[in-house]
Amino acid sequence: MSMQKPGLPKGMRDFGPDKMAKRNFIFSAIRTTFEKFGYQPLETPSMENLSVLTGKYGDEGDQLLFKVLNSGDYLAKTSQDDYDAGSKQLLHKISEKGLKYDLTVPFARYVVMNRHELTFPFKRYQIQPVWRADRPQKGRYREFYQCDADVIGTNSLICEMEIVLMINEVFDKLGIENYDIKVNNRKILAGITEAIGEADKLSELCTSIDKLDKIGKQGVIDELGSRSFASAAINALEPFLNIEGDNDQKLKTIKTLLADAASGLEGISEFEEILNYLAQFGIKNHHIAFDPMLARGLSYYTGTILEVKSNDVKIGSLSGGGRYDDLTGVFGMPGISGIGFSFGVDRIYDVMDTLGLFPEEAIISTTALVTNFERKTEPYALKVLSELRNAQIKSEIYPEPAKLKKQMNYADKKNIPYVLLVGEDEMESQLVTLKNMQTGQQTKITISEGIEILAKH
Amino acid sequence: MSMQKPGLPKGMRDFGPDKMAKRNFIFSAIRTTFEKFGYQPLETPSMENLSVLTGKYGDEGDQLLFKVLNSGDYLAKTSQDDYDAGSKQLLHKISEKGLKYDLTVPFARYVVMNRHELTFPFKRYQIQPVWRADRPQKGRYREFYQCDADVIGTNSLICEMEIVLMINEVFDKLGIENYDIKVNNRKILAGITEAIGEADKLSELCTSIDKLDKIGKQGVIDELGSRSFASAAINALEPFLNIEGDNDQKLKTIKTLLADAASGLEGISEFEEILNYLAQFGIKNHHIAFDPMLARGLSYYTGTILEVKSNDVKIGSLSGGGRYDDLTGVFGMPGISGIGFSFGVDRIYDVMDTLGLFPEEAIISTTALVTNFERKTEPYALKVLSELRNAQIKSEIYPEPAKLKKQMNYADKKNIPYVLLVGEDEMESQLVTLKNMQTGQQTKITISEGIEILAKH
Repeated sequence: MSMQKPGLPKGMRDFGPDKMAKRNFIFSAIRTTFEKFGYQPLETPSMENLSVLTGKYGDEGDQLLFKVLNSGDYLAKTSQDDYDAGSKQLLHKISEKGLKYDLTVPFARYVVMNRHELTFPFKRYQIQPVWRADRPQKGRYREFYQCDADVIGTNSLICEMEIVLMINEVFDKLGIENYDIKVNNRKILAGITEAIGEADKLSELCTSIDKLDKIGKQGVIDELGSRSFASAAINALEPFLNIEGDNDQKLKTIKTLLADAASGLEGISEFEEILNYLAQFGIKNHHIAFDPMLARGLSYYTGTILEVKSNDVKIGSLSGGGRYDDLTGVFGMPGISGIGFSFGVDRIYDVMDTLGLFPEEAIISTTALVTNFERKTEPYALKVLSELRNAQIKSEIYPEPAKLKKQMNYADKKNIPYVLLVGEDEMESQLVTLKNMQTGQQTKITISEGIEILAKH
Repeated sequence: MSMQKPGLPKGMRDFGPDKMAKRNFIFSAIRTTFEKFGYQPLETPSMENLSVLTGKYGDEGDQLLFKVLNSGDYLAKTSQDDYDAGSKQLLHKISEKGLKYDLTVPFARYVVMNRHELTFPFKRYQIQPVWRADRPQKGRYREFYQCDADVIGTNSLICEMEIVLMINEVFDKLGIENYDIKVNNRKILAGITEAIGEADKLSELCTSIDKLDKIGKQGVIDELGSRSFASAAINALEPFLNIEGDNDQKLKTIKTLLADAASGLEGISEFEEILNYLAQFGIKNHHIAFDPMLARGLSYYTGTILEVKSNDVKIGSLSGGGRYDDLTGVFGMPGISGIGFSFGVDRIYDVMDTLGLFPEEAIISTTALVTNFERKTEPYALKVLSELRNAQIKSEIYPEPAKLKKQMNYADKKNIPYVLLVGEDEMESQLVTLKNMQTGQQTKITISEGIEILAKH
């Protein structure tokens, strides 16, 4: 067989032990929080029928789907005409499945297929990879995890409150302190279009103000002009672009501006209700920043929308989500409303790495290494190991007799904090020499004394 | 948009909350055991370059790879000749990537690419899905998880001992009691071919005796005849097929039979060394069944091989693995030896389900539901909920005011063991009525008393 120099596909990543340990620290914070709040796990297959995926993410999304070739003689059902017609037409004949692009569409598909077994309200979380044939660039990958939680079958704003609480809890666990949960409501945005006299241009407004961070106020104004917003409308929008202050001040201003826009007032009252629920829970305005210019791209949102930004690290949103009123209509099951949100693990990882927030215990693999100097002392070393394991201490033995330096290097590279030296002396005295790898300190103690120290770690 | 009745691709599965809870119980037992023994996590991408995957699993394996279509205008680089030449030739022009078929080849690729950063011996575990375009049938899926652990860069038989210990520990945690760890050694099988005078036919022998369970002794004998084994050789094989008794008796018999076969004796001595290590660890012959007719299909094994079978449920092996002496040669890095093994989660699930081994706590999601009867009592219900959550109790509130029956049904369907009824009475007295959903018992107590009961759960 010929030798190959193997490589990774573009935009794909390996996660070695160090990165895995850190990522698992994040996943674990998210998973335990979802479960603490009563969300139950769901997993759907990596592949879906293309009929399920296509048309759900716009034309660009369809382009970015990874398509899986039919197995066997995939050309059997094709004709010269199909080939001549080109990639798009031939596709339908040679590929029936694609890799999932997000977790929402498969979730909707699952809900429709299992509508008769599910108990509503249904709270599910899903932590799985998704795939997009996007051009890879810094921070953008072709395979990445999404961590979604949705509750469907209820319009209660308690769900919004719970999402804020979950975001606070996850970031508390991770040690991320300086962040804003930006909150808005699509109804407020609809109210703004009413107030400025462009009530039929909600999605155009959202698309433009979604770019506010990137292109600035003037950029948004220019773009709206080119989208044929009347200049009176653009003038009327300016006060909204300039709303400032704390949440109370902002709410006061926007209430005046939206005094005649019914849906706008409804959106404001929903936001106030969420704040009210949070107050009942003992939390007020905690990390919450009302942002009437938050739009979020996805057009299926119809109520509350939210997005979390780090104030320390300039990076995209760490979490985001919103309320929708029709999750499954496209699959023939209308009227399923709910709210969902998602954590972006790659960005959270980058923020934590930049700020040095990963705690030591997140990168520790094994707690203790038992040394192995010669065949003669192996039986005693194995006895020590068996007692550590019985005490549920993560521990390993160096698998073959080797020089001390080599074994110390092994422990060091693997971030093992304690080494138990067991040579002839130790075997005779039935003791162990416990070495703390950080301080370098060594003490000769009994196995039980060693276990007592290690168990605390 | 047209309505669609959505479905799942053939051989693919959704895992809803109940199944996920049970599967996570199994994954958690496996993961914590791997980590307790010093194995570190690794994840590789779902897709690999086809150049990495092709030719590693035989012709049949190549057929079973799921191939991913190049993105964009995938036909751009093809010609009429490619199309005329058929599926196989066109493939190279339209697909460069495939979904991974197992975890071993990606692991080997990872080791080669990271050889300079890794510290050997390197112990990694990997729990990820793999994909095979196999014909789906009962118990065989096109997407399924593998749970592999390998240690490479050492020939120490302590690794074999550790695998036996890990299997025991995982099955202990899962409550699976009646199983055999069948152990053999490829060197013993090589010794048998020497002893019967067919030293050059090891792989043919392995292929045939691999089917022993299915086709029986006579079937194996017939097949070896058709594979041009001499009839003297087949006669000489019979005593090996008939070896019986406990491990000591079997070892005694085979030692006599292999007295003149050097590699056979080496294999036996390795097996005895493993038993010896286990004895030093305080375990002897625990679930171990020496089986000189165990072959295991994969041809890259060169030493110990093992396989775990349930004695209660007739099903394929629950775990298996073996030692190899060249993991990465095909990628230009020869001489990397090691040993690996794997748990089969789907089969373990089936065994546990059949025997009713999933403990109640494995299927409980939320510990407590706080009821919601009217807007008026919501503030008190939220106060109760916030105290439960502060005490780290998995809890949720019914998100909107609803009738008692509906909320009880919700708790019931979701396997929630406790409901806290908080109505007007409770709000006034600042108490809660705690209902045990299993016994139906209700008691009116303080929130702290409730927390004390729930915390024990």
